Amino acid sequence: MSDTRPIGIFDSGIGGLTVLRAIHELLPAESIVYLGDTARVPYGTKSKETIIKYSVNNARFLLSQGVKMIVVACNTASAHALDDVVRLTDYPVIGVVEGGVIAALKKASVAIGVIGTEATIRSNKYPSEINRLHPGTKVISKACPLFVALAEEGWTDNEVAHAVTKEYLQEFKGKIDALVLGCTHYPPLKGVIQSVLGDGVRLIDSAEETARIVGERLTGLGLRANGSTRGKISLAVTDSPERSLEVGRRLLGENLEISGVTLVDII
Amino acid sequence: MSDTRPIGIFDSGIGGLTVLRAIHELLPAESIVYLGDTARVPYGTKSKETIIKYSVNNARFLLSQGVKMIVVACNTASAHALDDVVRLTDYPVIGVVEGGVIAALKKASVAIGVIGTEATIRSNKYPSEINRLHPGTKVISKACPLFVALAEEGWTDNEVAHAVTKEYLQEFKGKIDALVLGCTHYPPLKGVIQSVLGDGVRLIDSAEETARIVGERLTGLGLRANGSTRGKISLAVTDSPERSLEVGRRLLGENLEISGVTLVDII
Repeated sequence: MSDTRPIGIFDSGIGGLTVLRAIHELLPAESIVYLGDTARVPYGTKSKETIIKYSVNNARFLLSQGVKMIVVACNTASAHALDDVVRLTDYPVIGVVEGGVIAALKKASVAIGVIGTEATIRSNKYPSEINRLHPGTKVISKACPLFVALAEEGWTDNEVAHAVTKEYLQEFKGKIDALVLGCTHYPPLKGVIQSVLGDGVRLIDSAEETARIVGERLTGLGLRANGSTRGKISLAVTDSPERSLEVGRRLLGENLEISGVTLVDII
Repeated sequence: MSDTRPIGIFDSGIGGLTVLRAIHELLPAESIVYLGDTARVPYGTKSKETIIKYSVNNARFLLSQGVKMIVVACNTASAHALDDVVRLTDYPVIGVVEGGVIAALKKASVAIGVIGTEATIRSNKYPSEINRLHPGTKVISKACPLFVALAEEGWTDNEVAHAVTKEYLQEFKGKIDALVLGCTHYPPLKGVIQSVLGDGVRLIDSAEETARIVGERLTGLGLRANGSTRGKISLAVTDSPERSLEVGRRLLGENLEISGVTLVDII
């Protein structure tokens, strides 16, 4: 038995392509429909109500495409709107906070740092999930709004990237041994973040752990696509396919070829 | 005769409050309805089609409030959607590009620099308007996407602000004698911009010139509110009044008291 229906992934923009890539690498037979809500990006500066409204909207689009699972690849949407998406469907719904929390708990022994958008940090989701799974864990979190702009600009190793990173992360130095990159836009900044914090701090990118959870959940529910045929990957955005392609290529490097993007009107 | 209907102003967010302030200072008897589309901000990274769709939406809301004029306080919307807003109504519609262009031409004798969002610069609106009014004028323009994030973060005079400004404006040095701040978010960065470019460059903030044009147009059309009673100022946003108040206060300083903001659902 092989369930060839696609996995649905949505993100506020194209940062979630890092999650798509991890899933595709682990589960190459799975087809994927990815929706980037580029007409309303970013979510990280918006209110809980608006984040829920947009997330439900995105999930409905994915369900209309016949997906067998929804992955919320945006940390901000995972932190604020996961329960609302779960209520929409009987199919499994997986956010990226879960993967980030599990990966961080595997790697930290002193204290965990969490960085993300204003809305993600305001939600307090990471500290509360970490402490639900491992009570008493020390967590320090901080919103780093300029990191998204840096990653989009492609400034990941210049003087500005170093100055911004020092300004934001100074307070973590010597206090944590793992840092959750709680926004899918942050991985391109790994190099400068590591150089500011030093080698004693493990950087946690939730994409791989999320892919592992996705695989496990599909297998457990008998929803896996099997066989050696590679799944089909479809990308949809709500605005400007050109810019999405450009920023997507910058985020993913040469690792995932993006052939084309469809513009959809879901608003 | 006094026409006490309000002037309508819209912006992608709350940066346009700098335009509201200039109009209120010049024309204190005028009432104003201001709409900040904070649920969909920013516009500067979006496509022309999406900018038009959102701008028309905002203008319709203002018209439903009985305004006698529409001021498009967002440079990105002024650059891409002014004609579409004009087509909606017989009332006068004024964008901020016009004011910026006129003010720059008054002050430049060598060449004019223009900075703005990606979408504003991509539109080529400033260079084409400047050359329509004064053919042959040399214009150098550059998108500075990180400036919005800096202004919102309140980082206007730290190491990061200086590094970002140097990186963006290096290429203008010695080549221009006036720089149009083509985004309502940029005025808080005037200090650092001036220090990087030196005193030989005049910084053009289109708010005051726009206010002058608004006053002239109202007078010409017999639409002025007269008398000594101060007009009423109403603010509406599409998301999160709390954050708007906070960022608004940071942008405006203590000069304009914001008493409260209404949340409206126009989407």
